[in-house]
Amino acid sequence: MARTVVDEQLFAGLRQGDRAALARAITLIESDRDADAPVAKTLIERCLPHSGDALRLGITGIPGVGKSTLIDALGLQFIAAGRRVAVLAIDPSSARTGGSILGDKTRMERLAQADAAFIRPTPTGGTLGGVARRTQETIVLCEAAGYDRILIETVGVGQSELDVDRMTDLNLLLMIAGAGDELQGIKRGIMEAADLIAFTKADGDAEARAARARTDLKNALTLLPPRDSGRHPDVLLTSAITGAGIADLHDRIDALHQEDVASGRTLRRRHEHNLFWMHRSLEESLVTALRNSARVNAALADLERAVQGGTKSPFQAAAELLDLFRKGGAPLL
Amino acid sequence: MARTVVDEQLFAGLRQGDRAALARAITLIESDRDADAPVAKTLIERCLPHSGDALRLGITGIPGVGKSTLIDALGLQFIAAGRRVAVLAIDPSSARTGGSILGDKTRMERLAQADAAFIRPTPTGGTLGGVARRTQETIVLCEAAGYDRILIETVGVGQSELDVDRMTDLNLLLMIAGAGDELQGIKRGIMEAADLIAFTKADGDAEARAARARTDLKNALTLLPPRDSGRHPDVLLTSAITGAGIADLHDRIDALHQEDVASGRTLRRRHEHNLFWMHRSLEESLVTALRNSARVNAALADLERAVQGGTKSPFQAAAELLDLFRKGGAPLL
Repeated sequence: MARTVVDEQLFAGLRQGDRAALARAITLIESDRDADAPVAKTLIERCLPHSGDALRLGITGIPGVGKSTLIDALGLQFIAAGRRVAVLAIDPSSARTGGSILGDKTRMERLAQADAAFIRPTPTGGTLGGVARRTQETIVLCEAAGYDRILIETVGVGQSELDVDRMTDLNLLLMIAGAGDELQGIKRGIMEAADLIAFTKADGDAEARAARARTDLKNALTLLPPRDSGRHPDVLLTSAITGAGIADLHDRIDALHQEDVASGRTLRRRHEHNLFWMHRSLEESLVTALRNSARVNAALADLERAVQGGTKSPFQAAAELLDLFRKGGAPLL
Repeated sequence: MARTVVDEQLFAGLRQGDRAALARAITLIESDRDADAPVAKTLIERCLPHSGDALRLGITGIPGVGKSTLIDALGLQFIAAGRRVAVLAIDPSSARTGGSILGDKTRMERLAQADAAFIRPTPTGGTLGGVARRTQETIVLCEAAGYDRILIETVGVGQSELDVDRMTDLNLLLMIAGAGDELQGIKRGIMEAADLIAFTKADGDAEARAARARTDLKNALTLLPPRDSGRHPDVLLTSAITGAGIADLHDRIDALHQEDVASGRTLRRRHEHNLFWMHRSLEESLVTALRNSARVNAALADLERAVQGGTKSPFQAAAELLDLFRKGGAPLL
């Protein structure tokens, strides 16, 4: 009962936009403690009806591209337009390394001081498969707390940016103008998941180079298939130092979002994504349950030896393990 | 009991190298009938101790590269060297289309008439996940029937060639010399899984072009990481029409195989592959069992609707489905 009271207090504080309550709620859903699970579940259920009105914007780019600095500048634009901004980070590697890509918020110092902004560092620890769940439940909490611009930062390397495309309404890809090799090091899939591309650090000596890179990239993009929206991503030039292009970037993002809400694309994507995550989560949980099954683990070493040595078919061994798992029943699972 | 007698006859015939018995045995392991499953299982168990001495060679290339014609010529070389040759085909798409990439054997007409050769068309029907199992169990049957050169043909598009690298000792990639675009259309992963590359149709006017393409490709290959063997693949020129390069190709394959057997690479790969297939098969079976669960299916539509509409968290819905599956017990699974 005490738990339920705390839950109600937490929910009320969160709905009033209390940042401490929001932070505590996020810590709760990130918790691996069994006792926290039912409280977290109830909280999410309470928040779900109050979520869904925000723009969920993915911001991807390789380390060093200037994500934090651009988010700082873009976030202030959103706030100036009357929005409340939450910044989250997805870093699947944090489950392994315990690292935080947001660091100490020093590169978002203006946004960190704004009343209408909430910055949440990457959670540390937890399982790899839990990153997607935690991120999406954090989005729900932030939206229920009144944030209507959710910026989800990812490192643009590996699987995370493809997963983030299944959590967001729009994706912004950040790039630096190099020596004509803009397409290098960026996987094709990442480019194809972008709704908008911005060159960062287009200032001083680098400005002319960025302008050329923009032209080259726009030409190259016509060779790729269009996004599910039917659009090829536009390419903008920005500088977080001079502020050039930031207001334009803000306006373009808002215009794309309005277009997608009006056309139904936003809702359609969210429906598809919700189903995707349900099935993905189910399959992952199942494999985890299997790996934790005492009966399976008791038989595994012998079967692995037989399979490795070629005296038992791998498919036969798999059938035997599945049998053990299914016969195991709840107590042993 | 009658089944056991048939099984013994089949096993004896297969061990004597009777091709009709081998064909019948393969049909048995390809069968989806429940009654055939225990017979097939026993047969594989009996054959396993008599398998493993063959060279398992993957042969990959895009449609039109001349796989069948080259296999015809290469297979005759193996037979001339005293080997018995089995030709299998992997075509994951056949599970969907019912198609056969080997067609009517007309492009392997010399091999099809040789006593020491056995050609098995792609199985039709069956589940997609079953393609790997059927192929590998067919390899075991062929080896137990005395075939010591197993050629496994794949279309080099999609996932199949990466799976075939987990079934074979060596992989031969076939390419045609085009207009300098040899690297186009071939995925990087396929190139990296090759132990040996052969240009086909290097005859007549195309011979000089193929020679240039060979030089270009050899240079390009030095930029890729070497194979797990530590080798970069060599590139050969062949013509199934003039016969040029076929004997050399045969000798190179045999030399690589002897090297790998001596170094332990062949055995190490097979151990790793067997474990891989056990785990892959287990996870696939588990997901299949879930999808076939009556309790899960009864709840699925309602949960999907709630998740799609955003009134229930996809992760919460997954947890409920997993709970239903695990509570379901054997009768409902």
